Amino acid sequence: MSKFVHIFAAELIGTAMVTAGPIAWGIWKSSGGAGTLLDAAIVSALPVLLGIFLFRATSSQFNPAVTLWLLLTKRVSGGAATAAFAGQITGAVGAALQLRLIANVPPAGMTVPHVSVPSAIIVELLLTLCLLGIIRKVGVISAGDYGKDTPAVIISLGVVALIVLGGPYTDASMNPARSFGPAIAAGHGTSIHQVVYWVGPLLAAVLLAAAEKLLPSPKKSDS
Amino acid sequence: MSKFVHIFAAELIGTAMVTAGPIAWGIWKSSGGAGTLLDAAIVSALPVLLGIFLFRATSSQFNPAVTLWLLLTKRVSGGAATAAFAGQITGAVGAALQLRLIANVPPAGMTVPHVSVPSAIIVELLLTLCLLGIIRKVGVISAGDYGKDTPAVIISLGVVALIVLGGPYTDASMNPARSFGPAIAAGHGTSIHQVVYWVGPLLAAVLLAAAEKLLPSPKKSDS
Amino acid sequence: MSKFVHIFAAELIGTAMVTAGPIAWGIWKSSGGAGTLLDAAIVSALPVLLGIFLFRATSSQFNPAVTLWLLLTKRVSGGAATAAFAGQITGAVGAALQLRLIANVPPAGMTVPHVSVPSAIIVELLLTLCLLGIIRKVGVISAGDYGKDTPAVIISLGVVALIVLGGPYTDASMNPARSFGPAIAAGHGTSIHQVVYWVGPLLAAVLLAAAEKLLPSPKKSDS
Amino acid sequence: MSKFVHIFAAELIGTAMVTAGPIAWGIWKSSGGAGTLLDAAIVSALPVLLGIFLFRATSSQFNPAVTLWLLLTKRVSGGAATAAFAGQITGAVGAALQLRLIANVPPAGMTVPHVSVPSAIIVELLLTLCLLGIIRKVGVISAGDYGKDTPAVIISLGVVALIVLGGPYTDASMNPARSFGPAIAAGHGTSIHQVVYWVGPLLAAVLLAAAEKLLPSPKKSDS
Repeated sequence: MSKFVHIFAAELIGTAMVTAGPIAWGIWKSSGGAGTLLDAAIVSALPVLLGIFLFRATSSQFNPAVTLWLLLTKRVSGGAATAAFAGQITGAVGAALQLRLIANVPPAGMTVPHVSVPSAIIVELLLTLCLLGIIRKVGVISAGDYGKDTPAVIISLGVVALIVLGGPYTDASMNPARSFGPAIAAGHGTSIHQVVYWVGPLLAAVLLAAAEKLLPSPKKSDS
Repeated sequence: MSKFVHIFAAELIGTAMVTAGPIAWGIWKSSGGAGTLLDAAIVSALPVLLGIFLFRATSSQFNPAVTLWLLLTKRVSGGAATAAFAGQITGAVGAALQLRLIANVPPAGMTVPHVSVPSAIIVELLLTLCLLGIIRKVGVISAGDYGKDTPAVIISLGVVALIVLGGPYTDASMNPARSFGPAIAAGHGTSIHQVVYWVGPLLAAVLLAAAEKLLPSPKKSDS
Repeated sequence: MSKFVHIFAAELIGTAMVTAGPIAWGIWKSSGGAGTLLDAAIVSALPVLLGIFLFRATSSQFNPAVTLWLLLTKRVSGGAATAAFAGQITGAVGAALQLRLIANVPPAGMTVPHVSVPSAIIVELLLTLCLLGIIRKVGVISAGDYGKDTPAVIISLGVVALIVLGGPYTDASMNPARSFGPAIAAGHGTSIHQVVYWVGPLLAAVLLAAAEKLLPSPKKSDS
Repeated sequence: MSKFVHIFAAELIGTAMVTAGPIAWGIWKSSGGAGTLLDAAIVSALPVLLGIFLFRATSSQFNPAVTLWLLLTKRVSGGAATAAFAGQITGAVGAALQLRLIANVPPAGMTVPHVSVPSAIIVELLLTLCLLGIIRKVGVISAGDYGKDTPAVIISLGVVALIVLGGPYTDASMNPARSFGPAIAAGHGTSIHQVVYWVGPLLAAVLLAAAEKLLPSPKKSDS
């Protein structure tokens, strides 16, 4: 029980940070601040790094797509996944509402597709597939081959790269919770755009889990 | 005695650098230079890294909140903490005054809250709590699990992330000395804003120290 | 056979990413986004890093010049090199065409010389020679001396540095496939500029291979 | 003899790169490109990293101040120092002249003091002292405590930090050769400004060497 409370709390705080990053950036931009696609990508990746540094011993998924993939591949239990998911949604929505109140500025941090919805779903699916692929390789399969916290840095660099690659098409969320929080705070929680950011990433989790079950288990030298 | 002199000197030079970073950035900006929230965050974090590289063998806190937390958790003695604190204030104020004279420009490098004072105190408290949490995990509890100087890099990356997260609300100081120096140089040393940058970070140090005393000591695998 | 299919697929996806980075940046810029020479360099280097993280166990050259050098120095077989080259061209051209369709924007991501064609060839040759020199040192000769994935980070930092150094003269491609894809998508596949981006990098591969054959093999301490 | 030729060549190419970085940046800026103080600092530090990656086995000082300090502390012989210095000046001046011809743009990459000449000398002295301090700690005294090439990354991060700290006052050269090349190419080789960039850094080398001789040799745990 206490373990699930810890997971809930770690995922809540971590996902709040992950959501707060793009919101801070949005506030900065809406106040006339300069910034590039790369800056935006780094700003979104840094809180992931921060969260892993702080909570890796307890739980550091901060993303329903990661949690779903870990659940489907039996790497976390149903109870732990439920606690994580509840924490993620609470953290993302809570952070967005809280910061909306504090900062008293127009809604910030939303992701919006810049291509058609079906294309956007495919882009989010591909980006999330790459993200889960990196997490699987450096964070799960062969984490022991690295120095401590090196996988966190590699995963964050991957997040930066993927946001740069996909940003112009979908704002590159790869994370339903991170997209849901700012949308709720802006009163757009039921927008059709939410389909993009829930279906794309979660479908990637299902596809990777299925591929792992169907394909022969990787030899050590393959990871 | 000589040990305290070394600590004083290391903290003086290091905190002077930590204060000189945002001042250099302020001069750059006030001369019409471009720059993003992320740039500003990195510029503030780099001198922390530089100071740790140079002075880690002697003393590398550069921040009264860090010193208070180390003192309250009996990780440094009262004498060492006093020497460190004296060095930090001397370095921060000295650097700000000195650079004001050299550069001959309007005051630069001050931190100013962009939300109400109570909200700003809470934001500084939360940011500093995260900062101390990272320092505790990677720099104190399990520094030996890392390659040499890796904790310094991780802590600096955490500083960048936290400044991005909190910058739009309080300029994300997390360090009373770093905020005090430029304020003194600008003649704003007794501004109500100073309350934000002293109370928030120092309260975080007290809270973390209390939590460490009340909670069971972490097992190795928890860190 | 199956091995060649894996190499083809890894090189296709990786080179598609390497090509998609500058295209994403081009879309960002053509929509009025800010960005510096350094941003552009990092954006081009990040997908290289991403590709190596994902595909290092299979194949991660993503560049015909690298493949040619590995072939000439007998580090890969003719079959593997052919599969890699086919994947690179398919990935680069496919990504550029695909993104042109999705994004529906003017052609993006092309490299263009800003100096005379002969000068540009020399610049691309020198840049690629440095790139291959780094890959050889940290990725081939003494990869085992590093932590896992550290060579990938070093090589990517080298790519950033080289793009900054050479960007103002030739846009610093160092990679015929990465330049060819966007040119094809823009209908400039037969432009004289292609000579710069094929001859310069491939000549560097030939020169380094020749130097390795002529010079005495390096002692361990030399790498 | 052959050894000195190798040192000359490595220092020539490396210092040419170190000089070419700020020149590329200057060309970028003079063509209307955006860029921040931090960008400029990173652009100047990246070629240092690149040069160390490529030439560490032979010689990677790329800076007369570093060479003088190594000579005075008997870490390199007079012959090696002479070869290195000759390579540095040839590389810096050669690169600047060559690029001036190729790029056909106004002189670029010069460092200019923004404060009085005596103040600028002090700033360059302090910055170079910090630079040499880092090189001494991570690159000379305890290089073996790090993973391969980690000292190069740390030194480069230090260069970035120091350029940010000192840029607004002197453009933060810390390297007589790097300042001399672009000045020669611009026809300002005999400007009074050259005094700043020769006296400050070289005096730092002398002071650190003297301090090392006078102070007791550091115990292992001090480094």
